[in-house]
Amino acid sequence: MIKKEITKLFPLLPFIDLCTVGEDGTPEVRAMLNLRNAQICPHLKGRFKDGDCIFYFTTNEHSGKMKQIKKNNKASVYMTDPQTFEGALLLGVIEEEKDKKTKDGFWHDSWKMYYPQGRDGADYCILRFTPKSYKYYDGKFNVQTGNV
Amino acid sequence: MIKKEITKLFPLLPFIDLCTVGEDGTPEVRAMLNLRNAQICPHLKGRFKDGDCIFYFTTNEHSGKMKQIKKNNKASVYMTDPQTFEGALLLGVIEEEKDKKTKDGFWHDSWKMYYPQGRDGADYCILRFTPKSYKYYDGKFNVQTGNV
Repeated sequence: MIKKEITKLFPLLPFIDLCTVGEDGTPEVRAMLNLRNAQICPHLKGRFKDGDCIFYFTTNEHSGKMKQIKKNNKASVYMTDPQTFEGALLLGVIEEEKDKKTKDGFWHDSWKMYYPQGRDGADYCILRFTPKSYKYYDGKFNVQTGNV
Repeated sequence: MIKKEITKLFPLLPFIDLCTVGEDGTPEVRAMLNLRNAQICPHLKGRFKDGDCIFYFTTNEHSGKMKQIKKNNKASVYMTDPQTFEGALLLGVIEEEKDKKTKDGFWHDSWKMYYPQGRDGADYCILRFTPKSYKYYDGKFNVQTGNV
């Protein structure tokens, strides 16, 4: 069971960092919509249970990260608490979630501004990140590591 | 010359993301003190000129990222503007800055809380990141790429 200090960071901020490896081996990071955040996704309230460490991200089929992930599925997810300077880095693998029911479960009609073809269009993709280990920064210059 | 939309993000926030590759190939990211930010480093005001794209970071000799960088110097630096949703990812290489004069130039005595041995101690290290290319996210769902 992953520690409470980490899981409490999961829904905190509207955006969350997703880190992948580019085709030439250079790491990349970008802010992604945090589907666990109540401000970003009120329609997903209750979707994630306490201790659930699987992260999902929305993306476009033609995004650069989709190409990267197909060649190298190693990834990490990073979030911080700007008030306490705590941070959590989850390390694991990412892949495309192809289960239609799961994808439909995340959809909100307002997302047509990102995916004009809607919920059933090919451009609407969901990524599923599964962590294997973590690094927890306690905000007081200490780092703790462990398995998920 | 890198575009103004990107360089204006450089000093904006107190923290900046540094992304490296771990020993098993998994990418990692963590927030670092932004030495260009006036709140974090008032003593470095004027140190960085407009258009200067070299980034420096303070770190401890025994940090995990130091080990990673010695094995794989590919890295990226990421910053955002939370108001406009703009973001800039700089991709390049990172290495330890060993020039004593450069290191001394960044030092502030308050950093003894991080580096108890002070400016001349072995634990005080400076990393130098040199970008080769960029991705600029304009906050309106467009990504622009280019060389630095």
